[in-house]
Amino acid sequence: MPLDARRIHDRCQQLAQLSEQPDGLTRVFLSREQRAADDLVLGWMREAGMDARLDAVGNCVGRYESQEPGRPCLMLGSHLDTVRDAGKYDGMLGVVTAIECVAELARSGTRLPFAIEVVGFADEEGVRFGATLLGSRAVAGTFDERVLDTTDANGMSMRDAMTAFGLDPSRIGDATRRPRDVLAYVELHIEQGPVLESLQLPVGVVTAINGGNRASIEIRGTAGHAGTVPMSLRRDALAAAAECVLAIERMAREMNAEGHARDVVATVGRLEVSPGAVNVIPGSVRFTLDVRAPTDAARDDARNAMERECRAIATRRGVEIAIAPLWEARTTVCDPELQRQFDRAVEAEGLRVHRLPSGAGHDGMAIIGIAPIGMLFVRCRAGISHNPAEAVEVADVEAGARTLMRFVRDFEPVR
Amino acid sequence: MPLDARRIHDRCQQLAQLSEQPDGLTRVFLSREQRAADDLVLGWMREAGMDARLDAVGNCVGRYESQEPGRPCLMLGSHLDTVRDAGKYDGMLGVVTAIECVAELARSGTRLPFAIEVVGFADEEGVRFGATLLGSRAVAGTFDERVLDTTDANGMSMRDAMTAFGLDPSRIGDATRRPRDVLAYVELHIEQGPVLESLQLPVGVVTAINGGNRASIEIRGTAGHAGTVPMSLRRDALAAAAECVLAIERMAREMNAEGHARDVVATVGRLEVSPGAVNVIPGSVRFTLDVRAPTDAARDDARNAMERECRAIATRRGVEIAIAPLWEARTTVCDPELQRQFDRAVEAEGLRVHRLPSGAGHDGMAIIGIAPIGMLFVRCRAGISHNPAEAVEVADVEAGARTLMRFVRDFEPVR
Repeated sequence: MPLDARRIHDRCQQLAQLSEQPDGLTRVFLSREQRAADDLVLGWMREAGMDARLDAVGNCVGRYESQEPGRPCLMLGSHLDTVRDAGKYDGMLGVVTAIECVAELARSGTRLPFAIEVVGFADEEGVRFGATLLGSRAVAGTFDERVLDTTDANGMSMRDAMTAFGLDPSRIGDATRRPRDVLAYVELHIEQGPVLESLQLPVGVVTAINGGNRASIEIRGTAGHAGTVPMSLRRDALAAAAECVLAIERMAREMNAEGHARDVVATVGRLEVSPGAVNVIPGSVRFTLDVRAPTDAARDDARNAMERECRAIATRRGVEIAIAPLWEARTTVCDPELQRQFDRAVEAEGLRVHRLPSGAGHDGMAIIGIAPIGMLFVRCRAGISHNPAEAVEVADVEAGARTLMRFVRDFEPVR
Repeated sequence: MPLDARRIHDRCQQLAQLSEQPDGLTRVFLSREQRAADDLVLGWMREAGMDARLDAVGNCVGRYESQEPGRPCLMLGSHLDTVRDAGKYDGMLGVVTAIECVAELARSGTRLPFAIEVVGFADEEGVRFGATLLGSRAVAGTFDERVLDTTDANGMSMRDAMTAFGLDPSRIGDATRRPRDVLAYVELHIEQGPVLESLQLPVGVVTAINGGNRASIEIRGTAGHAGTVPMSLRRDALAAAAECVLAIERMAREMNAEGHARDVVATVGRLEVSPGAVNVIPGSVRFTLDVRAPTDAARDDARNAMERECRAIATRRGVEIAIAPLWEARTTVCDPELQRQFDRAVEAEGLRVHRLPSGAGHDGMAIIGIAPIGMLFVRCRAGISHNPAEAVEVADVEAGARTLMRFVRDFEPVR
């Protein structure tokens, strides 16, 4: 029985049992639970006909040899660690589905002109030590050795945790792969958003892992007595901030409507009012702005336009404004040719092609340092992720697995 | 030297020394500091030619007899208690200025067809026991005896505090005055707002002590990942709340511009976002709405229109809204004829007449139960009150005192 979607789904449930908490799923880097998950995954890899090993940073790596042994690989994968109180599919679904595709090749005795490697990255979420993408950075050769000295909540350094896990922190470099050995990196992942569900599509082709900017914006007006200061004499910091919030929302919508910079999203997620009393006109407000887009140009345009508009609002209202950047990540673009290969695989499965960016981060952000990347999203329920309520239909797992299988069989190197 | 504004100002400084804290002014009901302030004020009253006594609730009451002894009185006054870390003029200025006016009558040997009583109310702010207007409610016969059982921060009941102060809690009723004995109650007070300063006027005639409504408004949308949910699929509670904040501001402004309900003020003073993370679309927002106006009809119209508009915004955006009333106070209208008498006094002093409502509460809210009320505002710096930075120019004290003096000399009973 080829491509057993039920087995993929069941294996996600099995992995979800390996948790530091009895009533939910939390599995962090270099933990006992990682060890148990590794044993399970390495076993599945071998069962699927792969040579499997733990690499120098703790990633599970399985290799399914090419027609001529020793050829470069198409790397498939995702991560095996989780956030706290996680869902069962974020990461794991991609690893288990990739193993299932290899098992199907092995069952049918198929060898391809390239090897396939499946990687279960040991840390993508960064829960234990704060730094993210540790597994994929090691593979890409961009692991920052300074993070070895960071400590977890119990005061244990990453260095000591690696040693206790049986790894040698001085040999992390051994995990690094050469660009010439990796033709491409391709990841199947749940969408973690509501777009595919809203379009009633089981899968979608990812265009980019969106870059992002975050800024902290402070508006200073004049606090005053809610009863004694007439409307015309107010410099209400909250009213000014509210105008900014609406302008940001309107501009992001218009940018998408125009097609000028499709898929821009902008969010004011925090907003704090001071002094914050029912009978006092707000004197100052501090809020955050998070802007993401599939291209850096679109994101820069959006952010600049929004900040300009906030400044204009402040000027019109006679309040002070200060904008401080908090964080920036550049966009990771999915290889256009890999997107086209995914499009063809989706079509061949009788599905409608929909392309969408990823709003969340993924291991491809690191692996792009050594190989072109591609991603396939699988619909999840209500866009919920990082939450025990994360859910995926078996039928969608099947659509994703079949699409990935077809992509792999038809894969042509893009460089 | 008639109407010594410098002395009024100095006496405010003297009273400000009587504080429970060395580095600021706090003087609460039934405290040692109240006792000291009473001694000072009763002495000034006697020096000004009045019979002076503490009444049954601890108010300082001075009486300057009429031409024919025993006639009803024009009652002047304000309060002698303060908020924590108070300014030096809120309350005290009205008591001291009234005493100065009587002193001037006495100096010139003038007796009027009515008596004058000056009251220094023992509690208006309600700092110690939470309940406000205790002094003026006792005078109006609306003191709620249940508050005798409330306790201060040290667990002392008001009943015990009164006894310790030398008052008999069972005799509070003795402080109550009959309507036929009080022709009117008139209070001079600092504006506690920025209107007179913005108009460059030293005094203003108060039209009403604004009523107010407060409500708590909760908007529920859908929380989501700031990166993965496109703009078109969002139900952002903060964007909806921001639209409400701006609608409230715009409607209050328009109501004033139209003259439809002049002097409406509406304030969103608190606003809390949940979950309140930089990368999470706000799922719910709770904010407060405080609406005040010089007439209950205008206030009801404004509040209803604003709540209707907030509901319409929620409906348009597909978010839920719940509006819960928190508090309501009806408007206390200053007697129109007393306003006219004040207008004439202001004009006779060569000043421009400006009428304005009071956004803050005052003892007149209680005294209106037994007598028509009138109020005169004196400009204060930058509208600042309930703050050590509260400041009044001596020249404005003089303008206020002269206007009040003229009002008293020319006073004609209005009922």
